[in-house]
Amino acid sequence: MSSQALVRVEGVVEDAGGFDLLAPEGTRYRVDVTDAVFDPGNSLLAERLEGRRVVAFVGPTVHRLYGERLRAYLDARLAPGSWSVHVIATGERNKTLASVEQVCAVAKAAGLDRHGVMLAVGGGIVADVVGFAASMYARGIRYIKVNTTLVGQVDVGVGVKTGVNALHSKNMFGAYHPAHASLNDPSLLATLPPREIRCGLAEIVKMAVILDGDLFATLERHPDAFLHTPNGDVETYVLRTSMRLMMEELCPNLRESELARLVDFGHTFSPVVETAGGHRLEHGEAVAVDMALSAHIARLLGLADADTCERIVALLTRIGLPVLDPATCTEDLMTQALQASWQRRGRKLHLVVPTGIGKATFVEELTDLPAEVLREALRALGAGGGAQ
Amino acid sequence: MSSQALVRVEGVVEDAGGFDLLAPEGTRYRVDVTDAVFDPGNSLLAERLEGRRVVAFVGPTVHRLYGERLRAYLDARLAPGSWSVHVIATGERNKTLASVEQVCAVAKAAGLDRHGVMLAVGGGIVADVVGFAASMYARGIRYIKVNTTLVGQVDVGVGVKTGVNALHSKNMFGAYHPAHASLNDPSLLATLPPREIRCGLAEIVKMAVILDGDLFATLERHPDAFLHTPNGDVETYVLRTSMRLMMEELCPNLRESELARLVDFGHTFSPVVETAGGHRLEHGEAVAVDMALSAHIARLLGLADADTCERIVALLTRIGLPVLDPATCTEDLMTQALQASWQRRGRKLHLVVPTGIGKATFVEELTDLPAEVLREALRALGAGGGAQ
Repeated sequence: MSSQALVRVEGVVEDAGGFDLLAPEGTRYRVDVTDAVFDPGNSLLAERLEGRRVVAFVGPTVHRLYGERLRAYLDARLAPGSWSVHVIATGERNKTLASVEQVCAVAKAAGLDRHGVMLAVGGGIVADVVGFAASMYARGIRYIKVNTTLVGQVDVGVGVKTGVNALHSKNMFGAYHPAHASLNDPSLLATLPPREIRCGLAEIVKMAVILDGDLFATLERHPDAFLHTPNGDVETYVLRTSMRLMMEELCPNLRESELARLVDFGHTFSPVVETAGGHRLEHGEAVAVDMALSAHIARLLGLADADTCERIVALLTRIGLPVLDPATCTEDLMTQALQASWQRRGRKLHLVVPTGIGKATFVEELTDLPAEVLREALRALGAGGGAQ
Repeated sequence: MSSQALVRVEGVVEDAGGFDLLAPEGTRYRVDVTDAVFDPGNSLLAERLEGRRVVAFVGPTVHRLYGERLRAYLDARLAPGSWSVHVIATGERNKTLASVEQVCAVAKAAGLDRHGVMLAVGGGIVADVVGFAASMYARGIRYIKVNTTLVGQVDVGVGVKTGVNALHSKNMFGAYHPAHASLNDPSLLATLPPREIRCGLAEIVKMAVILDGDLFATLERHPDAFLHTPNGDVETYVLRTSMRLMMEELCPNLRESELARLVDFGHTFSPVVETAGGHRLEHGEAVAVDMALSAHIARLLGLADADTCERIVALLTRIGLPVLDPATCTEDLMTQALQASWQRRGRKLHLVVPTGIGKATFVEELTDLPAEVLREALRALGAGGGAQ
């Protein structure tokens, strides 16, 4: 079967080198899994660039760790004068429209026309900013991602969302703009700090809880996955499975026309945990807190048994993720979070709760979640984090 | 046949009330032709808004002429508190990212969420700015256009391009973001200054030359169409035909993946005529100059006969459009314009030239257009505008 034939199948098709996604509305893109992506002997990135002019953007940390290798790769594989590398500021406070304009200005100065490619090498912020810049530059040009973080490889990197913060709201401006290709090299994860590994694992736990009991059991046996080696057999299985599950969930709903999304598990209370906490907790940590709280709500509503709830909270704890943030996990703030989600999701709550390990459902309406259940769930977490 | 069935046909389907477009890649939108759009007895605009929260934007002139009627309409047909009207600055120099941010800030302050609608009432600038704002607000929300200019109704209003000027380039940032609906009321054209009518006619002549000899002959009989009455039989025929032709041309190539576009007739030399002339000429006037020059080039290359060239130049002149701008129509500047188009169109010239009245072809390569032909075409226009 030729590659041409493969990508014509609607859905997600996995092959040795990665995944092809073809969404019902016609969007298609490639997610590659590769090794030593910046080794001049690896032709993959050069192939994906197709000889086009390229302007690459990297954050300061990635530039320090991999900038030299990236330049050496582009120098070895691309035509002289057809590429350049630029460092951009990272951090949530630089995820702004001003950064997007700056990326576009750099691209214009480098002579990029509508046939050129922007290359984003980094984590979620670089991908979000460069992706949004690519979506508006000359009404939309190609961009390619090389994802350097775990959360990038299993979550942000396989989807189509781009955006920046504005008007005091997260991701207020943005676009659904699929990357032409998304390259994922597990060996890049070796330089990640443990806290970033744990944040990636939070998103992997999310996928396991809602969709895949085997993946969950693997994490229970290996809560230290990715901490010592980025590409052992366990890590390869976990990474591949998470990517495939995420793409399969996104594929029929790439542009979020359907607002009830299982992948929003852990993403109802967490925005308030993040922002009201002044970003003391990382995104993945806030997601962990949200999942633990949602697990208790499921138990208290009779949607999940106590064992399910206990296993979820226990796994998060063993990974080293928080399951409670006392400063923000108040009844008032969590009620505000529910109302904000209700507003964002088209006046429906769509709260995702587990119904077992590997399956989940929605609490659809605000009225389906009585205040005493929320209060009791918070109390249960405060009482030690486990189920009673 | 139900309306549901109609819009499932790929292409452009005309009915009594307007047009449905369904592009091969799945994009679909509606273009309505209506009368007295702001008469509270006309339910069309209210139907298109579907009871959603709406934030309307109008330019100062349209606000002066129609603001009161617009407010009275929304007041009569929509729920109290579900709508607001805001005036935004127009003019090419306000077609900026700052204006887009301002539109978004106003929408946010008015409580617009991703289910809300932005309503753009005006000409090309308002549509471009509000459309681009809608494309990025919450990663893309609905917008609806009420087109108040002739060029808006036959050209900008039926397409999907939005954008703003930036980095010293026209439409440097933008998006292909189809309006949910585009409402065209010919009676709004009654208040247009004659110069704007003529600019709209330039785009109509463009469509006639490349695609429709009957439309061209009608314009030859009625070069004063729209100047005295906006909705006589001739005007209705001209408007409907131009809209249909434009939509049929755009439909298979909505996002301009194909850069050889017949509708670019008149749009190769004109950007330089506009900008190098300091916007002394309106866009439609620059397009007229470009069409006359392209007609002479076609004649000199042996692609069109002298009669075709003469009829085009004569019609433009009878309408009252310029066919030469001596200050910018120099060999140097027009050569620069060819090179800029070549760059913009993926290193191909794709110059559209008539091969008769109602048909056209492309001069594909820069080398297919010798300097002496350009020089001779400019000289022919300077010598009186007719063919020899």
